[in-house]
Amino acid sequence: MYIILVYDIISQKRGTKLLKYLRQHLSWVQNSVFEGNVTPSGFEIIKSGINEIINKDKDSVIYYSFESMSYSKRGVIGIEKNETDSFI
Amino acid sequence: MYIILVYDIISQKRGTKLLKYLRQHLSWVQNSVFEGNVTPSGFEIIKSGINEIINKDKDSVIYYSFESMSYSKRGVIGIEKNETDSFI
Repeated sequence: MYIILVYDIISQKRGTKLLKYLRQHLSWVQNSVFEGNVTPSGFEIIKSGINEIINKDKDSVIYYSFESMSYSKRGVIGIEKNETDSFI
Repeated sequence: MYIILVYDIISQKRGTKLLKYLRQHLSWVQNSVFEGNVTPSGFEIIKSGINEIINKDKDSVIYYSFESMSYSKRGVIGIEKNETDSFI
Protein backbone atom coordinates (compact mmCIF):
# COMPACT_ATOMS: atom_id res chain seq x y z
CA MET A 1 0.00 0.00 0.00
CA TYR A 2 1.08 3.56 -0.61
CA ILE A 3 1.11 6.10 2.21
CA ILE A 4 1.16 9.89 2.25
CA LEU A 5 1.67 11.12 5.80
CA VAL A 6 1.70 14.68 7.16
CA TYR A 7 2.29 15.76 10.74
CA ASP A 8 1.93 18.82 12.92
CA ILE A 9 3.84 18.41 16.17
CA ILE A 10 3.69 21.14 18.80
CA SER A 11 6.91 20.28 20.65
CA GLN A 12 10.18 20.63 18.78
CA LYS A 13 11.63 17.71 20.74
CA ARG A 14 8.84 15.34 19.72
CA GLY A 15 8.96 16.74 16.17
CA THR A 16 12.65 15.90 15.82
CA LYS A 17 12.08 12.45 17.28
CA LEU A 18 9.20 11.75 14.87
CA LEU A 19 11.21 13.04 11.89
CA LYS A 20 14.06 10.65 12.71
CA TYR A 21 11.65 7.77 13.21
CA LEU A 22 9.76 8.32 9.96
CA ARG A 23 12.99 8.68 7.97
CA GLN A 24 13.67 5.04 8.82
CA HIS A 25 10.38 3.87 7.33
CA LEU A 26 9.18 6.29 4.65
CA SER A 27 10.62 8.77 2.15
CA TRP A 28 10.85 12.40 3.19
CA VAL A 29 9.03 14.73 0.78
CA GLN A 30 9.31 18.20 2.34
CA ASN A 31 8.79 19.84 5.73
CA SER A 32 6.65 17.42 7.74
CA VAL A 33 5.52 15.29 4.80
CA PHE A 34 6.48 11.69 4.03
CA GLU A 35 5.39 9.15 1.47
CA GLY A 36 6.21 5.57 0.62
CA ASN A 37 5.28 1.99 -0.08
CA VAL A 38 4.69 -0.19 2.96
CA THR A 39 3.02 -3.48 3.71
CA PRO A 40 -0.18 -3.31 5.77
CA SER A 41 1.59 -4.97 8.71
CA GLY A 42 4.56 -2.64 8.29
CA PHE A 43 2.22 0.33 8.49
CA GLU A 44 0.67 -1.02 11.70
CA ILE A 45 4.18 -1.04 13.20
CA ILE A 46 4.79 2.54 11.99
CA LYS A 47 1.50 3.70 13.54
CA SER A 48 2.46 2.07 16.87
CA GLY A 49 5.80 3.90 16.75
CA ILE A 50 4.05 7.22 16.04
CA ASN A 51 1.66 6.61 18.95
CA GLU A 52 4.62 6.21 21.29
CA ILE A 53 6.26 9.45 20.17
CA ILE A 54 3.45 11.99 19.85
CA ASN A 55 1.22 13.65 22.41
CA LYS A 56 -2.22 12.61 21.21
CA ASP A 57 -3.95 15.59 22.86
CA LYS A 58 -1.77 18.16 21.13
CA ASP A 59 -0.13 16.70 18.03
CA SER A 60 -1.71 15.70 14.75
CA VAL A 61 -0.65 13.04 12.26
CA ILE A 62 -2.82 12.54 9.19
CA TYR A 63 -2.25 9.77 6.69
CA TYR A 64 -3.79 8.80 3.40
CA SER A 65 -3.39 5.16 2.41
CA PHE A 66 -3.97 3.82 -1.08
CA GLU A 67 -4.25 0.28 -2.33
CA SER A 68 -2.95 1.45 -5.68
CA MET A 69 -1.58 4.68 -7.10
CA SER A 70 -2.59 3.67 -10.64
CA TYR A 71 -5.26 6.33 -10.90
CA SER A 72 -3.21 9.08 -9.34
CA LYS A 73 -0.71 11.67 -10.50
CA ARG A 74 2.03 13.43 -8.57
CA GLY A 75 3.11 16.88 -9.68
CA VAL A 76 5.62 19.50 -8.59
CA ILE A 77 5.46 23.28 -9.01
CA GLY A 78 8.80 24.88 -8.23
CA ILE A 79 11.59 22.68 -6.92
CA GLU A 80 11.59 19.06 -5.80
CA LYS A 81 13.15 19.03 -2.33
CA ASN A 82 13.91 15.35 -2.36
CA GLU A 83 15.40 14.61 -5.79
CA THR A 84 16.13 11.00 -4.90
CA ASP A 85 12.50 10.07 -4.48
CA SER A 86 10.58 8.21 -7.08
CA PHE A 87 6.84 7.73 -7.04
CA ILE A 88 5.85 4.08 -6.56
CA MET B 1 -10.79 15.02 -8.95
CA TYR B 2 -9.39 14.98 -5.44
CA ILE B 3 -6.23 16.91 -4.58
CA ILE B 4 -3.77 16.65 -1.70
CA LEU B 5 -1.35 19.57 -1.85
CA VAL B 6 1.68 20.32 0.34
CA TYR B 7 3.99 23.30 0.12
CA ASP B 8 7.35 24.47 1.42
CA ILE B 9 7.77 28.21 0.91
CA ILE B 10 11.05 29.87 1.89
CA SER B 11 9.75 33.43 2.26
CA GLN B 12 7.20 34.12 4.98
CA LYS B 13 5.58 36.79 2.82
CA ARG B 14 5.00 34.40 -0.08
CA GLY B 15 3.94 31.67 2.39
CA THR B 16 1.21 33.88 3.85
CA LYS B 17 0.06 34.89 0.39
CA LEU B 18 -0.13 31.27 -0.77
CA LEU B 19 -1.97 30.21 2.41
CA LYS B 20 -4.62 32.87 1.82
CA TYR B 21 -4.93 31.93 -1.83
CA LEU B 22 -5.29 28.20 -1.20
CA ARG B 23 -7.87 28.75 1.56
CA GLN B 24 -10.15 30.15 -1.15
CA HIS B 25 -9.93 27.00 -3.24
CA LEU B 26 -9.15 23.98 -1.04
CA SER B 27 -9.66 22.82 2.55
CA TRP B 28 -6.87 23.45 5.02
CA VAL B 29 -5.66 20.25 6.72
CA GLN B 30 -2.72 21.32 8.89
CA ASN B 31 0.45 23.40 8.57
CA SER B 32 1.10 23.74 4.85
CA VAL B 33 -1.24 20.96 3.73
CA PHE B 34 -4.51 21.30 1.83
CA GLU B 35 -6.95 18.87 0.29
CA GLY B 36 -10.18 19.07 -1.64
CA ASN B 37 -12.39 18.26 -4.57
CA VAL B 38 -11.84 20.33 -7.69
CA THR B 39 -12.69 20.08 -11.34
CA PRO B 40 -9.74 19.54 -13.72
CA SER B 41 -10.20 23.05 -15.14
CA GLY B 42 -10.52 24.47 -11.62
CA PHE B 43 -7.21 22.86 -10.70
CA GLU B 44 -5.53 24.38 -13.77
CA ILE B 45 -6.62 27.79 -12.48
CA ILE B 46 -5.29 26.99 -8.99
CA LYS B 47 -1.93 25.92 -10.47
CA SER B 48 -1.72 29.18 -12.42
CA GLY B 49 -2.40 31.11 -9.22
CA ILE B 50 0.33 29.17 -7.37
CA ASN B 51 2.76 29.86 -10.21
CA GLU B 52 2.18 33.58 -9.84
CA ILE B 53 2.81 33.53 -6.07
CA ILE B 54 5.79 31.25 -5.53
CA ASN B 55 9.45 31.61 -6.45
CA LYS B 56 9.98 28.54 -8.62
CA ASP B 57 13.72 28.43 -7.94
CA LYS B 58 13.31 28.31 -4.16
CA ASP B 59 9.82 27.16 -3.21
CA SER B 60 8.25 23.74 -3.57
CA VAL B 61 4.61 22.77 -4.07
CA ILE B 62 3.81 19.08 -4.45
CA TYR B 63 0.38 17.80 -5.31
CA TYR B 64 -1.20 14.39 -5.61
CA SER B 65 -4.31 14.22 -7.76
CA PHE B 66 -6.74 11.33 -7.77
CA GLU B 67 -9.56 10.48 -10.14
CA SER B 68 -11.30 8.72 -7.29
CA MET B 69 -10.70 8.25 -3.58
CA SER B 70 -12.72 5.02 -3.54
CA TYR B 71 -9.69 2.86 -2.88
CA SER B 72 -8.16 5.12 -0.27
CA LYS B 73 -8.44 5.67 3.44
CA ARG B 74 -7.73 8.75 5.52
CA GLY B 75 -6.68 8.33 9.13
CA VAL B 76 -5.73 10.55 12.03
CA ILE B 77 -3.41 9.82 14.96
CA GLY B 78 -3.77 12.46 17.67
CA ILE B 79 -5.98 15.43 16.98
CA GLU B 80 -7.72 16.58 13.82
CA LYS B 81 -6.74 20.21 13.33
CA ASN B 82 -9.58 21.00 10.98
CA GLU B 83 -12.71 19.40 12.49
CA THR B 84 -14.97 20.84 9.82
CA ASP B 85 -13.41 18.87 7.01
CA SER B 86 -14.95 15.78 5.60
CA PHE B 87 -13.24 13.38 3.25
CA ILE B 88 -15.38 13.08 0.10
